[in-house]
Amino acid sequence: MARLVKPAAGGPRSNVLRNGDVGDAAIMPYSEVDTLAINTIRILAVDATFKANSGHPGAPMGMAPVSHVLFNKFMNFNPKNPDWANRDRFVLSNGHGCMLQYALLHLFGYDLSMDDLKNFRQLDSKTPGHPEAHDTPGIEVTTGPLGQGFANAVGLAIAQAQAAGTFNKPGYDLFNNYTYCFFGDGCAMEGVASEAASMAGHLKLGNLITIYDDNGISIDGDTKCAFTEDVMKRYEAYGWHTVHVKDGDNDLEAIEAAIRECQQVIDKPSVIKLTTTIGFGSKLQGTGGVHGNPLKADDCQGVKSLFGFNPEESFVVPQQVYDLYHQHAAEGAAKEQEWNQLLQKYASEHKAEHDDLVRRLSGKLPEGWEKSLPTYKPSDAAIASRKLSEAVLEKIHDVIPELVSGSADLTGSNNTRWKNAVDFQPPEYGIGEWSGRYLRYGVREHAMAAVMNGLAAYGTVIPASGTFLNFVSYAAGAVRLSALSRVRVIHVATHDSIGLGEDGPTHQPIETLTHFRALPNCMVWRPADGNETSAAYYMALTSKHTPSILALTRQNLPQLENSTIESAIKGAYVAVDAPNAAVTLISTGSEVSIAIDAATSLKEKHGVVARVVSAPCFEVFDAQPKEYKLQVLPDGIPVLSIEAASTMGWERYSHEQFGLNRFGASAPYKQVYEKFEFTPEGISKRALATIDFYKGHSVRSPINRAFQQIL
Amino acid sequence: MARLVKPAAGGPRSNVLRNGDVGDAAIMPYSEVDTLAINTIRILAVDATFKANSGHPGAPMGMAPVSHVLFNKFMNFNPKNPDWANRDRFVLSNGHGCMLQYALLHLFGYDLSMDDLKNFRQLDSKTPGHPEAHDTPGIEVTTGPLGQGFANAVGLAIAQAQAAGTFNKPGYDLFNNYTYCFFGDGCAMEGVASEAASMAGHLKLGNLITIYDDNGISIDGDTKCAFTEDVMKRYEAYGWHTVHVKDGDNDLEAIEAAIRECQQVIDKPSVIKLTTTIGFGSKLQGTGGVHGNPLKADDCQGVKSLFGFNPEESFVVPQQVYDLYHQHAAEGAAKEQEWNQLLQKYASEHKAEHDDLVRRLSGKLPEGWEKSLPTYKPSDAAIASRKLSEAVLEKIHDVIPELVSGSADLTGSNNTRWKNAVDFQPPEYGIGEWSGRYLRYGVREHAMAAVMNGLAAYGTVIPASGTFLNFVSYAAGAVRLSALSRVRVIHVATHDSIGLGEDGPTHQPIETLTHFRALPNCMVWRPADGNETSAAYYMALTSKHTPSILALTRQNLPQLENSTIESAIKGAYVAVDAPNAAVTLISTGSEVSIAIDAATSLKEKHGVVARVVSAPCFEVFDAQPKEYKLQVLPDGIPVLSIEAASTMGWERYSHEQFGLNRFGASAPYKQVYEKFEFTPEGISKRALATIDFYKGHSVRSPINRAFQQIL
Repeated sequence: MARLVKPAAGGPRSNVLRNGDVGDAAIMPYSEVDTLAINTIRILAVDATFKANSGHPGAPMGMAPVSHVLFNKFMNFNPKNPDWANRDRFVLSNGHGCMLQYALLHLFGYDLSMDDLKNFRQLDSKTPGHPEAHDTPGIEVTTGPLGQGFANAVGLAIAQAQAAGTFNKPGYDLFNNYTYCFFGDGCAMEGVASEAASMAGHLKLGNLITIYDDNGISIDGDTKCAFTEDVMKRYEAYGWHTVHVKDGDNDLEAIEAAIRECQQVIDKPSVIKLTTTIGFGSKLQGTGGVHGNPLKADDCQGVKSLFGFNPEESFVVPQQVYDLYHQHAAEGAAKEQEWNQLLQKYASEHKAEHDDLVRRLSGKLPEGWEKSLPTYKPSDAAIASRKLSEAVLEKIHDVIPELVSGSADLTGSNNTRWKNAVDFQPPEYGIGEWSGRYLRYGVREHAMAAVMNGLAAYGTVIPASGTFLNFVSYAAGAVRLSALSRVRVIHVATHDSIGLGEDGPTHQPIETLTHFRALPNCMVWRPADGNETSAAYYMALTSKHTPSILALTRQNLPQLENSTIESAIKGAYVAVDAPNAAVTLISTGSEVSIAIDAATSLKEKHGVVARVVSAPCFEVFDAQPKEYKLQVLPDGIPVLSIEAASTMGWERYSHEQFGLNRFGASAPYKQVYEKFEFTPEGISKRALATIDFYKGHSVRSPINRAFQQIL
Repeated sequence: MARLVKPAAGGPRSNVLRNGDVGDAAIMPYSEVDTLAINTIRILAVDATFKANSGHPGAPMGMAPVSHVLFNKFMNFNPKNPDWANRDRFVLSNGHGCMLQYALLHLFGYDLSMDDLKNFRQLDSKTPGHPEAHDTPGIEVTTGPLGQGFANAVGLAIAQAQAAGTFNKPGYDLFNNYTYCFFGDGCAMEGVASEAASMAGHLKLGNLITIYDDNGISIDGDTKCAFTEDVMKRYEAYGWHTVHVKDGDNDLEAIEAAIRECQQVIDKPSVIKLTTTIGFGSKLQGTGGVHGNPLKADDCQGVKSLFGFNPEESFVVPQQVYDLYHQHAAEGAAKEQEWNQLLQKYASEHKAEHDDLVRRLSGKLPEGWEKSLPTYKPSDAAIASRKLSEAVLEKIHDVIPELVSGSADLTGSNNTRWKNAVDFQPPEYGIGEWSGRYLRYGVREHAMAAVMNGLAAYGTVIPASGTFLNFVSYAAGAVRLSALSRVRVIHVATHDSIGLGEDGPTHQPIETLTHFRALPNCMVWRPADGNETSAAYYMALTSKHTPSILALTRQNLPQLENSTIESAIKGAYVAVDAPNAAVTLISTGSEVSIAIDAATSLKEKHGVVARVVSAPCFEVFDAQPKEYKLQVLPDGIPVLSIEAASTMGWERYSHEQFGLNRFGASAPYKQVYEKFEFTPEGISKRALATIDFYKGHSVRSPINRAFQQIL
């Protein structure tokens, strides 16, 4: 088992291929306790996956050495306060290897007990099948879906650089943490990680250090069957610093030297290609057999024997390992103390910045910020909701300094940039500053959403960014994780329907609103006018644990008679009331004013009384008291929904649905609306059919249900 | 205006930076008629966007020179038969520049008139805002959403290589066409294109030649604000051949030499970096001002004057240009004739292959293929539907030789590979053949779906491929285009619910079924047993113009009493009938058998009679006659839906809904099912509540509606 001992030949750093200068820091020799710690991590992963009869032992066994060096030699953190603002961040992008992370968190003294490890992948445990940020102390972001963690790490590194640019002052290096990220071949293949890597290279994120687990194995076996590109050359093309550690299984000195080298490259993100043996120590090491299946019983025993552990015992941690790691944890706690003292001193010299920072870290918005939200009267001009959104940003960016905006190369279309915005850019480009609050994401929607998840997780900024609603779908994988990991990010999703006109069906969303409404813990807002747009921002900014998608129009919308921020933040409200109504028309966004015109037309041409409800956000309306909901959608009156998109989901709030269950058309938008009958006449026709259909039937409000959903 | 004339210095090929050997073919000098043709294309784009007051003139004006050289000097096609199997394929991945493509199609004599050009971006025209394959002759794939076309081109090139490997014989080079693709900075930034490029490099697709429009401009202005990577170095890292043409505006000889060079590199895909001036000839050339807005009237006139056209006239084509292009078209028609003769001769020597090919090109499946579909009796063992899917593939792969399968690195989990499958790989790897029918897509879900769109568009294969249902969401952008462009692709989407168990919420779809059910022209199948799985494949394979997503379980499912292929292909059918039922339970996939158990339990414990409907596919059920649908969901009986996913959309088929409008949980799957009450008891409780709620109310079937939807 030659692979289990250090290579005989070559000095400690002989295996590092260097692209840059190596630092001068002396590398201390590693000893038996280091090996013991590494093997303890490996065996905990073996034991937990075996006990669960489920999980991925291979990556933890292969990456235990680099984890040990990174966590114990480099990373600053305090397990007793996982929220310390300047802690080093760690992201396990290959999240299936989470027993590695759980083992580390336990060993260093986070609030994760041995019982938690024993409950790996069990119901309601703190150790689920992939790391979830909101449930487990020390987990920064929710990973598992491949490529996401890598892009999150880019977001965390951007946030660090932005915080440093904003708050650091001479003598006050408040934000200088590193962001470390492990990723595997799967992440390296995913487009979201490619996009994020290109962005990170452009942004010269020197405090981002990633480690690529080059184990040559993915689920289909040898990566050579699908993945023969030169990964390091690709990262160089992105502008990254690259290093190769050839023996990631044993050569701790080389690992340490590589990380040290990367720390000294301050104008580029770094990637260390770490060649490892997946499932190191198993009979099946180096094969796909250890990737996603627990080791067999005899193999577990074999591994333990090999590493000098008692093969009959499980979940054993030698006290030396606890001691070693707890010592490092204590050093981290001391560093936090120092930092806290620095912060106190900062208060005396930089009071305003100090108070702003402390407030931001508390998660509270500035007192009274909402007074800056624009309001509108019915007599105000018709304005596209993308422009109304711009007006909100223009008004609030000064009072909410933590708001950072951006766009996936559609700035002029998304209207996401306030007039005096400064771009977040390395200053040497001459087009922005580290403290800039506007991000140029490039045409990279998926990375944008995943980077925003990282930005939000850092704690000092609230990210918003734009693309067309249709292309939020490119980012579906990341938006899902925003919702699951409960972060406050805002998607400014313009061009939200066939109302975008000439660009045509390739750009006109049909299924998109339904898709994200079906996603748990995600607010989809489709405001109908200025006050509703302000309401959408109000809710998006005050909902600390929920992402929002604001679906906004390209075309102009009139200001409604009865809209107010107060009404709209209930998710749905009565926009036109009428006693003895024969029908309720419920609608969103650009179709609300057409529905109101239809109500007028129904009265004038048919003598039929119609109420109109504007419902900018299902999720928020769902959360209202039943009594309120029944006021909006009372018993006895049939409800017709109107929205220029898929009708799917509207059945929940209406008896009959008028929508678009087909693709749109390329033409000037008014013609497209006419083609599909989203006109007062088209609505009236269907309202009359609805009234007729329910004549003589008892009509119950769709709010009344036989039972409650599990939430 | 020095940029408008050829550079004075340097020979014709001096601007080509070569990475490989250049071919010996003599380059003929270009003449005035070439310049005239190029400027005609530019001015048609200017005129059409100006008339529409909408569109993107910049890319057509910049890429007219390379289009002219490519289409007139290299490409083989017959405008009178856009379906010729061995035609060269052209994909405009930067689809917003579609006036370029429409102008070319018109000038070469495709069925696209000058009136069609004048109707650019108008209602129901053949010239929509972005190219749509099904509406416009000569458009191979639907593009516009950035990055997609590039990945489609990779699919077209794979299909060509696979067809060549399958059908070419000594003396019969039936399939040797090139796939050409234009793409811009936006496509280069998109992850889907990065994934596809990595795959294409691995697969050594020598007949793929792409041209990167390096104009330095995207919507946010200079690409330097977000995109400073070395694109060519990145493509080299992927294993591509790269060439740079420095003056893409004028140097036609260099363009020709570059394409010729790429044609001679047969073991790598190629990319030509073509440095151009966006909006060449406009006052705003080289700026973002010409990207997405028509030129102003005076600028239109200026361009015309500059190019020697009458500034007062619009939509003018000099006869010499028609003559030149029609001559090339005639040469293309002659080449098709030669090919047809070759094919006839092939019939005499290779009868079986010939007949197979002709049948495939007709779009017809082999007679009687469906007899190979496995069927099951209720007494057969419980089997996971992913395994049932494997059984289908095992049975039908011999009788449907055009079926190609694959997986995004989840082969063993998706069960997509039949036992004796051969991988599609360059033979030199020693792990497959060009004729192989199993694709190793790598962990690249988005590219996989987009590549499948290209495969399907080629005409000789039907693509199927696997990932987890949750990760079909990564591919949402491409799946949407499958539906819009009406191609037959099959997503084998396993691990389709909380039933996947331990992997937990990061991998458990909640919103996914709803999302794709809301997508028009997309069949989402969720079979409950073996016969339903066979039915899903039957419909997926026989629906020539509709993509399918087959949602399949990880866990075992019993064979139902009343399931048959014939019933299931109606989309929904009565799985358990019962006279005088008090409730109908409607369900899909893994929940159907639990609903059946609930019906038994309701009878035994509560004396309540319940019917059970299995509804494996909404879209197909929707298409049934109303009479049938009312038999399945009759008036008078309240309907309760049961599905372990978002309830959104189920309101269309049921009065009450039992589902999961929250994220799942990581645990052994039976415990997860119990936690969320997807048990006979949990269903019974809700069925009783439903019956109670509707007691004394007249109950209409959800099939009865006040009006029809626009389809």
